[in-house]
Amino acid sequence: MAALFHQMTLCGVGLIGGSLALTARKLGLIERIVGLGRTQANLDVAMARGLIDEATRDPGQAARGADLVMLATPVMAFPQTLAAMVPHLPEHAVVTDVGSVKEWVVRELEPLIGPRMALVGVHPVAGKETVGAAAAEENLFVNRRVIVTPSRRSTPDAVAKVEVLWRATGAKVETMTPAAHDAILARASHLPQLVASALAAALEHEQIEGKFAIEYGAGGLRDTTRIAASSAEMWRDICLTNRTAILAALKLFRGTFEEFERVVERAEADELIALFERGRRMRERLK
Amino acid sequence: MAALFHQMTLCGVGLIGGSLALTARKLGLIERIVGLGRTQANLDVAMARGLIDEATRDPGQAARGADLVMLATPVMAFPQTLAAMVPHLPEHAVVTDVGSVKEWVVRELEPLIGPRMALVGVHPVAGKETVGAAAAEENLFVNRRVIVTPSRRSTPDAVAKVEVLWRATGAKVETMTPAAHDAILARASHLPQLVASALAAALEHEQIEGKFAIEYGAGGLRDTTRIAASSAEMWRDICLTNRTAILAALKLFRGTFEEFERVVERAEADELIALFERGRRMRERLK
Repeated sequence: MAALFHQMTLCGVGLIGGSLALTARKLGLIERIVGLGRTQANLDVAMARGLIDEATRDPGQAARGADLVMLATPVMAFPQTLAAMVPHLPEHAVVTDVGSVKEWVVRELEPLIGPRMALVGVHPVAGKETVGAAAAEENLFVNRRVIVTPSRRSTPDAVAKVEVLWRATGAKVETMTPAAHDAILARASHLPQLVASALAAALEHEQIEGKFAIEYGAGGLRDTTRIAASSAEMWRDICLTNRTAILAALKLFRGTFEEFERVVERAEADELIALFERGRRMRERLK
Repeated sequence: MAALFHQMTLCGVGLIGGSLALTARKLGLIERIVGLGRTQANLDVAMARGLIDEATRDPGQAARGADLVMLATPVMAFPQTLAAMVPHLPEHAVVTDVGSVKEWVVRELEPLIGPRMALVGVHPVAGKETVGAAAAEENLFVNRRVIVTPSRRSTPDAVAKVEVLWRATGAKVETMTPAAHDAILARASHLPQLVASALAAALEHEQIEGKFAIEYGAGGLRDTTRIAASSAEMWRDICLTNRTAILAALKLFRGTFEEFERVVERAEADELIALFERGRRMRERLK
């Protein structure tokens, strides 16, 4: 395959960005990759693993010569990083990202780019608990969903090239609006996180007759709270940047939770079966 | 080890009862095991696997000669099963169970037993998704908690013998009151189930622009809702028989969930970090 881009500057060489770099280099889709990072230690790992050709902590230096900017830091750091790079970018640079919220990203970044640049919002739905350049792996995106959210400043050419890049990783690429993306992910990803974290937080100190309740949990408690171990900073950013959609998702859950509360309170046997069966059916469909 | 009991009648030859039977026979703790069941097919499996010496669907026949009655059916079937057996039991029979609620069991069963019989409530915290005699396995209880809840009709001798039986399976046996058991399990087991089921039920039909939200969930959604696949009948029984403790646990969760809702609504960054960190700390302690 001919190279799609001459130079990609990867801002944040972590699990997602590093894994993309591995595939892009292997397939020859990108001629040169520059890694922009905050800590030298992680950049050293990225260089040693051959994820990037050059490492820098200076956004201006990272910007020079980049026809593709891949923002892969925590979402709320995108505007500051991009603003520092724009004056040094080639005038036709394509800016893209891997953030897990999209309306906020588009709204914050579109005003920052130059008049001939393009912005293509992307969310690869492929998170894991592991972090940093050391966690990057070649097949991370195989059969995963990658959602592209074209917006006012996305040119057809830039969208096409970004989609080819992601398809090459083995991902299933699809397109939707930033708003649809955020509403869907608020329900399928952000809501489970908040519910799991609330359950874990509620039980943290809970004691009965001097015994900690959580020590009596089995696999169910373990599974249901597993993702509560995720980064608090990352989830703070998601809550702040996808606030409206998350509030709607929380309200959706609250309605069903209150139905459960009500039928337990009233000891309604048939209604309990009906509610648990709704949950069972969702799981059958999830298979 | 000398036999602890001459004949155990196992009411419900499923995962828990069948697994206990396997160990008890192997160690020679019980001379003879009679299986009482509803369906001949499951009893045939139990006979073929050597879990039991004799199979019957008649409670009266099952009761004859039993110095130990092990109730291992769904909890709400205990009273009817035991009532049908009591007239045919030896007068010093010990009645025990493996139900996942304890106050209700003790309250319902104590009035049913004969004046010289004893009741010892037990909950082996070792559930799995698999069911029936085919699912029984020898090491199911190794290092699992088994909670014994002595009550008014538990004699010291009966408690001691039941504890020896469970310790022989490799389980960690401990004692608490039925009320403490129910309060702890309401938090560590019943609450996660209701939260997972409510989350799954809330998302069942959820669509955004014609796309089903759950199809965009990753590992987090999958883990958080896994136990929603459990038996609706079993969880109806648990909700009905441990209602008061479960309502308290739901209220506990609701309080923390509402804190999350409030800080998202108000976009309070530091408070979001603090809440997510509470969840993270619980998970660290769960390790």
